[in-house]
Amino acid sequence: MTTEDEAATKARTTAALHGCTRRISGHGYIEPAVWLSEAASAASEPHLDVYGAGGEVEALERDVAALLGKEAAVFMPSGIMAQQAALRSWVDRSSSDAVAVHGMSHLVRHELDALPEVHGMRLQRLTGEPRPATVADLDAITEPLAAVTIELPLRDAGYLLPSWDDLVAFSSRARELGVPLHFDGARLWESQPFYDRPLAEIAALADSVYVSFYKGLGGMAGAILAGSTDLVAQARRWQVRHGGRLFVLLPYAVLARHGLATYLPRMPAYRDRAIELAARLDELDGVRVFPNPPQTNGFRVYVEVPEAAAVEAGLQVMEQEQVAVTGWWTSADVPGWSMTEIATGEATAAWEVDEQVAVVADLVARGRALAAQAPLPQEAATTDSED
Amino acid sequence: MTTEDEAATKARTTAALHGCTRRISGHGYIEPAVWLSEAASAASEPHLDVYGAGGEVEALERDVAALLGKEAAVFMPSGIMAQQAALRSWVDRSSSDAVAVHGMSHLVRHELDALPEVHGMRLQRLTGEPRPATVADLDAITEPLAAVTIELPLRDAGYLLPSWDDLVAFSSRARELGVPLHFDGARLWESQPFYDRPLAEIAALADSVYVSFYKGLGGMAGAILAGSTDLVAQARRWQVRHGGRLFVLLPYAVLARHGLATYLPRMPAYRDRAIELAARLDELDGVRVFPNPPQTNGFRVYVEVPEAAAVEAGLQVMEQEQVAVTGWWTSADVPGWSMTEIATGEATAAWEVDEQVAVVADLVARGRALAAQAPLPQEAATTDSED
Repeated sequence: MTTEDEAATKARTTAALHGCTRRISGHGYIEPAVWLSEAASAASEPHLDVYGAGGEVEALERDVAALLGKEAAVFMPSGIMAQQAALRSWVDRSSSDAVAVHGMSHLVRHELDALPEVHGMRLQRLTGEPRPATVADLDAITEPLAAVTIELPLRDAGYLLPSWDDLVAFSSRARELGVPLHFDGARLWESQPFYDRPLAEIAALADSVYVSFYKGLGGMAGAILAGSTDLVAQARRWQVRHGGRLFVLLPYAVLARHGLATYLPRMPAYRDRAIELAARLDELDGVRVFPNPPQTNGFRVYVEVPEAAAVEAGLQVMEQEQVAVTGWWTSADVPGWSMTEIATGEATAAWEVDEQVAVVADLVARGRALAAQAPLPQEAATTDSED
Repeated sequence: MTTEDEAATKARTTAALHGCTRRISGHGYIEPAVWLSEAASAASEPHLDVYGAGGEVEALERDVAALLGKEAAVFMPSGIMAQQAALRSWVDRSSSDAVAVHGMSHLVRHELDALPEVHGMRLQRLTGEPRPATVADLDAITEPLAAVTIELPLRDAGYLLPSWDDLVAFSSRARELGVPLHFDGARLWESQPFYDRPLAEIAALADSVYVSFYKGLGGMAGAILAGSTDLVAQARRWQVRHGGRLFVLLPYAVLARHGLATYLPRMPAYRDRAIELAARLDELDGVRVFPNPPQTNGFRVYVEVPEAAAVEAGLQVMEQEQVAVTGWWTSADVPGWSMTEIATGEATAAWEVDEQVAVVADLVARGRALAAQAPLPQEAATTDSED
């Protein structure tokens, strides 16, 4: 697609999603004013936070440090910032500027190379394969390391988690090597049911842990970095340097606390629903899911429909049926197949699995019919504008 | 004071400020839940912003670009981030990694050396004196520069602005030298009445301009960087790398727009009030203001009372009269004198100058009486804990 077509599709998708009354993925759409009103209702601390001190921010930091069994915690606007603050703090304590990462991790793929560009770190890839990193991957890196990271789950590989034993072994090996282990726990809350152990027991395997509040916990933004008191104090200085110590962080902190109270207890139910839905979808003609069963609330859905047809079919389902599978499809490796991700949440729980399976089947049927026609609207437009 | 004493004074100040019904500085205290409700009421865009696109964020960027007469604008969580994104973008276009700054600027004093620490920039100081930088200062730097910055007004020197002619001359000289000029316009809105020219005419003197939304405009946080389309696009990538492209920036963008609509038109009135109040305070025994007259809504108040006594007197006034001058005092250069800053706003406008002058006189009288006693509570505590 051309940039103009992409913008048009994006605008159409936004409007279509807005008009949907039911969704298969996530917690559901919420109007801006309604969301702010909910935040107002959830606010319970009498004082404002000011530059990270006091109010909802301090209360959240205290709660999450306890939940993760860490000495201290700091709230930051984003995970990208929280992880850089952690890793830079580890690098500053080391004679090495190398950090071990998974080649498919968010740190490598979705942050415009911030670790080397902003902090001059050298990245050592544990592996580039779509599987969790192993002790053997760590052992294969012979350079001294300032830190090693694990993303729980590895989202770009299909929300994949290492087994508990593998995770323990990885942590033990890092400690034998004297290398601090950092967890990218953007979906740590969502990973807990798989391990079926307290969050603090999972977090104890790492020396620093980042968790997020706007995925399964349904907040607007925000992240916590938890660890030792001295590491967190050091990270706070990098937060300042990044421009992340905001005058007031109230809205994000309020909704993070609301998410912990409301959605965290429902993570096992979200995962159960993901397992049930994935199994049913995998039975459909022209549909495959991965992983099956899902390990968290998130999984990938592959359909035997080309990307442009899948996008158009998804839009038609949204516009005509007011029902959304997700707001995007992208080409899979296999020609003629497309992929999207489903993360179950409140919106998923609000209606029946049978109906959701029927919607996906309808999308695939529409997509196949569209693909059988030629040219598709997007393809025609691309051809026109490039001629 | 010891750290414990500082924490106790801070907690007492927070509680005391919370209990005040009248304030001399700022827009006034607001309860967390009330502030969020106001944001909910102010929200007018039907769609949410998502990762910086759409909704209130896009509307704000469009409005501010127009107001400042720039091609493009990007909303970021903080000014520290916005300025680094701008200056790094200028450095990336230059063969030099040197940026000229005022030695008393926010960039130098209040950001934990982020420009060198995060971006490896070399700082070239225009001057360290408490006055605006001049063309002569710029000419004295013979190294090639990637950019030069001016803070409008220079807050740590007493909210000082260069004259219009001096500002024009500085801009012209930077352009002759081929060095991009960046405005730290944290208080550009507050500076406009001094120049009495359209904001776009002021901003036209610079190649990139940062403005803030949580000072005179009364927001929770947030900043805009405005400039050419290509510079802003480049800065957006540094925003991502900094961890500043948040999932949803709605609350900050809504309140920024509210501030532009509500408080921006009142900037001339705030400045008039600052001029009137400063003149009256300067007539008091043991009180001096700077600058007199103020150039913006902000000015410094010096009192002939030692810091500990001024802090205690301020707390007593707050606790006993439910009236706040400001929440802090710091030692002035002259022994036995202390300083605070007043920035006039809605809270100032809500009651009479005569009464405000009387409150400051009361504070000075109390402070002098306290200083005549010995030891002061803080000094006694310090002595105890150090013995």
